[in-house]
Amino acid sequence: MRVSNLFTKSNKEVSAEETAKNARLLIQAGFISKEMAGVYAYLPLGKRVLDNITKIVKEEMNLIGGQEVQLTALQPKEMWDATGRWNDDVIDVWFKTKLNAGGEIGLGVTHEEPMTNLVKKYVNSYQDLPLFTYQVQTKFRNELRSKSGLMRGREFLMKDMYSFARSEEEHQKLFAEVKVAYEKIFKRIGLSDRTFFTTADGGAFSSGFSYEFQTLIDNGEDTIYLDRDKNVAVNEEILSDEVLTSLGLNKADLEVHKASEVGNIFNLGTKYSKPFSLNYLDEDNQQQTVIMGSYGLGISRVMGVIAEVMGDEKGLVWPEEVAPARFYLASLGIDTEVTEKADELYQKLVDEGIEVLYDDRDARAGEKFADADLSGIPYRVVISNKTIAEGKVEVKPRQSDQVEMVSIDKLIEKFGVKL
Amino acid sequence: MRVSNLFTKSNKEVSAEETAKNARLLIQAGFISKEMAGVYAYLPLGKRVLDNITKIVKEEMNLIGGQEVQLTALQPKEMWDATGRWNDDVIDVWFKTKLNAGGEIGLGVTHEEPMTNLVKKYVNSYQDLPLFTYQVQTKFRNELRSKSGLMRGREFLMKDMYSFARSEEEHQKLFAEVKVAYEKIFKRIGLSDRTFFTTADGGAFSSGFSYEFQTLIDNGEDTIYLDRDKNVAVNEEILSDEVLTSLGLNKADLEVHKASEVGNIFNLGTKYSKPFSLNYLDEDNQQQTVIMGSYGLGISRVMGVIAEVMGDEKGLVWPEEVAPARFYLASLGIDTEVTEKADELYQKLVDEGIEVLYDDRDARAGEKFADADLSGIPYRVVISNKTIAEGKVEVKPRQSDQVEMVSIDKLIEKFGVKL
Repeated sequence: MRVSNLFTKSNKEVSAEETAKNARLLIQAGFISKEMAGVYAYLPLGKRVLDNITKIVKEEMNLIGGQEVQLTALQPKEMWDATGRWNDDVIDVWFKTKLNAGGEIGLGVTHEEPMTNLVKKYVNSYQDLPLFTYQVQTKFRNELRSKSGLMRGREFLMKDMYSFARSEEEHQKLFAEVKVAYEKIFKRIGLSDRTFFTTADGGAFSSGFSYEFQTLIDNGEDTIYLDRDKNVAVNEEILSDEVLTSLGLNKADLEVHKASEVGNIFNLGTKYSKPFSLNYLDEDNQQQTVIMGSYGLGISRVMGVIAEVMGDEKGLVWPEEVAPARFYLASLGIDTEVTEKADELYQKLVDEGIEVLYDDRDARAGEKFADADLSGIPYRVVISNKTIAEGKVEVKPRQSDQVEMVSIDKLIEKFGVKL
Repeated sequence: MRVSNLFTKSNKEVSAEETAKNARLLIQAGFISKEMAGVYAYLPLGKRVLDNITKIVKEEMNLIGGQEVQLTALQPKEMWDATGRWNDDVIDVWFKTKLNAGGEIGLGVTHEEPMTNLVKKYVNSYQDLPLFTYQVQTKFRNELRSKSGLMRGREFLMKDMYSFARSEEEHQKLFAEVKVAYEKIFKRIGLSDRTFFTTADGGAFSSGFSYEFQTLIDNGEDTIYLDRDKNVAVNEEILSDEVLTSLGLNKADLEVHKASEVGNIFNLGTKYSKPFSLNYLDEDNQQQTVIMGSYGLGISRVMGVIAEVMGDEKGLVWPEEVAPARFYLASLGIDTEVTEKADELYQKLVDEGIEVLYDDRDARAGEKFADADLSGIPYRVVISNKTIAEGKVEVKPRQSDQVEMVSIDKLIEKFGVKL
């Protein structure tokens, strides 16, 4: 894409009302636009990042056999009366409204009820199990406060997977498969070295403990106690000598950190399958209740977390697989030869299937370099009279000050291929 | 995908409450599930169809320079006060609710206001124009009645594009580009031979006429007068001698048909740019108002229309580019050799990048054939002892009773490649 064609621009000023670092950087770089507190629109470059994260998450869910569906935002009251969760004392972030035709409805805060109800339509026998279903869907939560940018929105994109097993043992196997898939996702999106599997409170959703993937972040909403050697953590909310002993952890070995939850795993047991009578006939023709698990991953939240933890004083920093483009190509000066060579390289990279943001504007080098850094695209590539004289291009990784002169073949061979 | 792994199944019975043909067929085939009137969840095969239509629409919008964004479902009242459209007398299908933090909000019925407001943030000069923005987004409409399945939902998926031009002349050029793109879309999704460019009332959205793409359909909500030779139509709502004369049409040449609107084009003029002060400085440094157009295409509605107009007594019929798979592969009998050959062919087709739904169940031929027809997948491929003896497979197009025996190489060469 050519910068001259992009309708968005980087913004010099961001409203002081916006206090979250992630939202400030994303607005400044022209990736998102604030519609109201906790509600953001995605602009072309931001939409690409969101799509890239979504693609990674879907690929890993599909690899373990996840079947993609799309449930609905509009939820009838009756569906939630079955579990008592329509009650505002149980879920206090409902947006509720009414049908003109009569009847109360709410906007999907979460989807355990409709997913259980859906799967019940199709599961009868042990031969229909186990299975995973998932969706990537907008969730709506009527949060009283929303000041963390994409990290806690009132309207946000989430992947929620659900597992349906015949026994506790089978459930544990499915749980372990999702855990591995989540580890692969966090590696691919570039957060693995600061994201830890954390034991937490099961809460209202779950029976017993729940599990979280927590990313270390200075202004995170959670506090975790991390055992670096064992590569696991405990959420402060359940910290006690008894819990530590049960997890085989020693308080003296733990570091305390602020963190933000990027994924979660709930052992739902029969909490939802019982009220919806989601049963199956076993091999002896006996009725049994399905054992469920749920596995959340906040896609827009992850985008916010990456911006928050990786962004530096120059702007955003995107890991390779989530970046809106691989190269930020800047032509310097408006000499015909520079423009021709830059156009040619742009076309060559596009033909090779490499995503490029091509800054073809008639603008000063300083402005182009500042926008290149602000955009967080992994490699800046410069074409100027100087590079043309050497028959090369200049390349600089986003997080380095070292420039390197390389031939176009070497640029593609060394920097054009994702690891 | 293997049918044995798919959690959905075809349904023998569909509730008599569901009267729309499209929804009945889609529910029976396990493509969608009804959550409430006008609100449907998409199951794995239905999600694929929806994704295929979305992909085609995005490709054609991108080709004419459309820049993809994602606006929000939650809409602050203040945004809509600017045009008076918060008023229920102006838009009577709002879902409205309140923020816990205070303030009224509605669910996006349409997005002219937020899109105009967004583009205003970035457009200052004639050099920033013209441009196209678009999104694929869920819309919410609080319809009093909703009995047409996917053809008129309360929650539905829509592509809405907007054009921003410097002059009426430039607007006409952009309008013409979208018209060509729409014609390509309807050709690719298999509706072009029954879809017609129709002049209609501009309504509250527009100034002057608007334009629709209307698909002929027995129980359509609209009535159009079609001139087949000229390949254009007029919506009954504006039919008058004066209008016909202005369009160069002769009443005697017109056929009357029921039809359903699958796309629309509104000349918005300055209806939205004025209240939002979306202006630009022209080459003489004079302030001018931007001329806008909007271009809707109901993605889930198109899915319903295809099911409605193409479905026959045996089930769904999908055009090649929107089908959830290209081949419905059925193995007959449970002989080890049949299973091995079918598994082998399945893997070969997957490796070739051809989408296959593989019916590997231990089920009767009649059941597999009925499900193959019901699914609407373009080609049924059978492997049995008989076909193995001949060293071939049997292939049958969905809309033909003629079977053909072909080698696997020929299957891929002749039927595996989309036209």
